[in-house]
Amino acid sequence: MTGRLAVVGLGPGNPLQTTPEAAAAVAAASDVFGYGPYLERLARHPGQTHHASDNREELDRASRALAMAASGRSVAVVSGGDAGVFAMAAAVCEAIEHGPAEWRAIETTVVPGVTAMLAVAARAGAPLGHDFCAISLSDNLKPWSLVEARLRAAASAGFVIALYNPVSRARPWQLGRSFEIVRAVLPEATPVIFGRAVGRPDERIAVTALRDADTADADMATCVIVGSAETRLVSRPALSPLVYSPRSSGRGAA
Amino acid sequence: MTGRLAVVGLGPGNPLQTTPEAAAAVAAASDVFGYGPYLERLARHPGQTHHASDNREELDRASRALAMAASGRSVAVVSGGDAGVFAMAAAVCEAIEHGPAEWRAIETTVVPGVTAMLAVAARAGAPLGHDFCAISLSDNLKPWSLVEARLRAAASAGFVIALYNPVSRARPWQLGRSFEIVRAVLPEATPVIFGRAVGRPDERIAVTALRDADTADADMATCVIVGSAETRLVSRPALSPLVYSPRSSGRGAA
Repeated sequence: MTGRLAVVGLGPGNPLQTTPEAAAAVAAASDVFGYGPYLERLARHPGQTHHASDNREELDRASRALAMAASGRSVAVVSGGDAGVFAMAAAVCEAIEHGPAEWRAIETTVVPGVTAMLAVAARAGAPLGHDFCAISLSDNLKPWSLVEARLRAAASAGFVIALYNPVSRARPWQLGRSFEIVRAVLPEATPVIFGRAVGRPDERIAVTALRDADTADADMATCVIVGSAETRLVSRPALSPLVYSPRSSGRGAA
Repeated sequence: MTGRLAVVGLGPGNPLQTTPEAAAAVAAASDVFGYGPYLERLARHPGQTHHASDNREELDRASRALAMAASGRSVAVVSGGDAGVFAMAAAVCEAIEHGPAEWRAIETTVVPGVTAMLAVAARAGAPLGHDFCAISLSDNLKPWSLVEARLRAAASAGFVIALYNPVSRARPWQLGRSFEIVRAVLPEATPVIFGRAVGRPDERIAVTALRDADTADADMATCVIVGSAETRLVSRPALSPLVYSPRSSGRGAA
């Protein structure tokens, strides 16, 4: 007897940014797995069981969810933002690849969501309006040298850079080092956006220049966007400035 | 008298993937501007005027929307996917920067949405599960040499690559040339995903190997995702294969 598994992106945190598809997928589940704070955002439907776990235990959480789906239950695994961006969908696929053969028969769907960089970008204007990349600064699962190489490659090639997982208690220096690396390539006036907890009551958006970017403005709930050499800041007398990356390009470091 | 302007991302095309925030922003507008096919997806609310325009006229559309907002109307400009990713938000910011000073006083908001690469990735598994980038193949507004340089940089640095605007009647060869460039860097078995019209009735998803990637599988409504050297394909006897990029990395081209 085989159940089903949905890996669901809840969006950045404001329920108005959760798609109807995602809300329906959660509502239809008998069992919901996720990091505790994400589960706390959700109403518990009648007869539904919530299985909270710690942030670090993604592969274990995926395996437990798959085992439960294999037993015939209808399971949802939730992520903040989009489930496929530095989140649970990859962990579920990895668990299927290395797990028992029967897991490959489970009907598995991924429900996309608004990922953090899109919500942060929207608050600032359109910093992702041209070619861009997303890099996780966590070196728990990759060597730091690889992160540095990617930062250099992306900044040199003219990509706007969205930094996920910029800082944590166990990784206090990586964001500062990242700023050093891109400062060697980009103009010091390049706009940098710190977007924390976007759409939630404790939201905080800060726009600064790369020369002044301060790692103290970032925590675990922050997504940082570093502009390209072409990203512009439009000041407005009575409103916050707009940051955008023009649709046209040509002065890049090609 | 100054009105307001909302730049709204409608999601990939399935109304269940439009956020409640986006739907509310459209419903609240007196005037809605957008590319014709996007407007056709929307219900016209009582008293609301729809202003359709052609795909190529983004800056002109932005300027007309801003002029109408400046006259006191409540205006929405809609994009498919996310409004900030190769879409209208950057055009609106550009128009504000270069337009009359009064446009800087217009209350302008950007409402994010599920961008195409997230919806395509969800259908395939988790190909964007690790560091990735998004590149528009349109060379209408940037030199083609810059696109080639970015493709080389991204593939060499181990980014998964999402290709937007892969092909059009006026740009028939750019996607084929892009495949040539990344073939020089990536293993020939690297998974490539063609996602067309995801979430709509005419959706078509195809997964192939880079060696076999055929530009005939792409049209204007397609987003193409090219894996990194680490992206994996998990075959499933009775289901379509899963494509995912592992959370851990280390064999990249650092």
